[in-house]
Amino acid sequence: MKDKLMVVKIGGNIIDHPTALDNFLSEFARKPGKKILVHGGGKIATEISKKLGIVSQFVEGRRVTSAEELEVVTMVYGGLLSKKISAKLNALGCKTLGLSGADAGILTAEKRSPTPVDYGFVGDIQTIQKQHLLDLLNSDFNLAFCALTGDNAGQLLNTNADTIAASLAIALANHFEVDLYYIFEKKGVLERLADENSVIPVIDKGTFENLKAEGKIHTGMLPKLSNALEAVEKGVKKVVISDPAFFAEDHPYCTIIKSKADA
Amino acid sequence: MKDKLMVVKIGGNIIDHPTALDNFLSEFARKPGKKILVHGGGKIATEISKKLGIVSQFVEGRRVTSAEELEVVTMVYGGLLSKKISAKLNALGCKTLGLSGADAGILTAEKRSPTPVDYGFVGDIQTIQKQHLLDLLNSDFNLAFCALTGDNAGQLLNTNADTIAASLAIALANHFEVDLYYIFEKKGVLERLADENSVIPVIDKGTFENLKAEGKIHTGMLPKLSNALEAVEKGVKKVVISDPAFFAEDHPYCTIIKSKADA
Repeated sequence: MKDKLMVVKIGGNIIDHPTALDNFLSEFARKPGKKILVHGGGKIATEISKKLGIVSQFVEGRRVTSAEELEVVTMVYGGLLSKKISAKLNALGCKTLGLSGADAGILTAEKRSPTPVDYGFVGDIQTIQKQHLLDLLNSDFNLAFCALTGDNAGQLLNTNADTIAASLAIALANHFEVDLYYIFEKKGVLERLADENSVIPVIDKGTFENLKAEGKIHTGMLPKLSNALEAVEKGVKKVVISDPAFFAEDHPYCTIIKSKADA
Repeated sequence: MKDKLMVVKIGGNIIDHPTALDNFLSEFARKPGKKILVHGGGKIATEISKKLGIVSQFVEGRRVTSAEELEVVTMVYGGLLSKKISAKLNALGCKTLGLSGADAGILTAEKRSPTPVDYGFVGDIQTIQKQHLLDLLNSDFNLAFCALTGDNAGQLLNTNADTIAASLAIALANHFEVDLYYIFEKKGVLERLADENSVIPVIDKGTFENLKAEGKIHTGMLPKLSNALEAVEKGVKKVVISDPAFFAEDHPYCTIIKSKADA
């Protein structure tokens, strides 16, 4: 039987609030088995950019990572948050290395093409050094990855944290029984946005297509669900979408993403 | 025979200048054997603090690390520089993890007593998790440590990079044949500060005491030499003090610190 591995991506509702982050880290440290945490650092990076007088640019509602903003993101995701998270987890007895995808070239990305839209220093994951991950996990290091990768030439790139989490989960699915958690501000994927308890308990590819056709899935939810479905199709045992209270076992509501095979 | 391990601490003359840093990293990547890099981030942290409107405080000429400055140091040392360094080393084929002492609790420090002088969030190293270092080095990861540690409660602390380098070298001296390099702006310890070629080739405890008594050692050099002498006394094979050109084998001048036993 394979060892269990939990990959947990946390959202801005945790990372932007010190108390919420502390509470989450306590729960994370308590969970059994091998663990990987994945985080960005949203609002804090925006605040620091503002203080430094950097004007954020947006194209079609999406942030462009300029060279200056990449430096801020590297400082905030890769430094401030990564090192705070690893210091706290280690103090809780959870032996953790705070890493970026650029460390040991674990996640190599390619800068996204500037056409049709130039998002700046944003990268899409190309390769994963699975053996490096196995070496670290098998030496009983837990890992905390921030939303940064590097390209082949040593250029750092801002990279979507949801995708990093799914990529790591998929890469390790042959070696571990992997559960992937997306912990964000809602109890799960909601049937009706206005009703926070209208959690859809199970989604598979079929349900996903139906919900999409009915226009029931909020735009922000679409890439997360695509990542989740890809993960279960590629061998991740279970993907769970819920909030920190679910992770702390304070309520039972969550959305579980299943592959068609399980449905 | 023990494997070789090179521990290299770099100074502001490298870390503050992108071209100097790139050149150094190319040389570092080319050196054979297992390697640990140790860096701070001096002027860049000061510049970012200034831009953020943080006023640096000094007591008796030494910087006080306030809570705000600790955040900047964590961003700059632990993020901006650490991740740039690991991205570049990996692109050069030198598989490296960019870490702080707080990662996996590798270097645990204690906040320095606020009496007689309160230096703020500054830590002195208490314990080293040698096994974690061995696990990483034996999996062929090179390591780049920034000048940050954590205490037992998860508080990050600014920690002298020279001391971190010496502590790591000493901790690993039983397991590897360790050479410790202090690479800074001069060719070595100078007999006469005005003459950049007046490098003292060899210093042992006896020479050190004589030079000190004669007032020939510059104040800034004293803690570096104390660290160096402690290292060779505790089993580090060799400590070398010189500049980046020596490290690149462009000239032969350096100061070698030897233990009394070798002298």
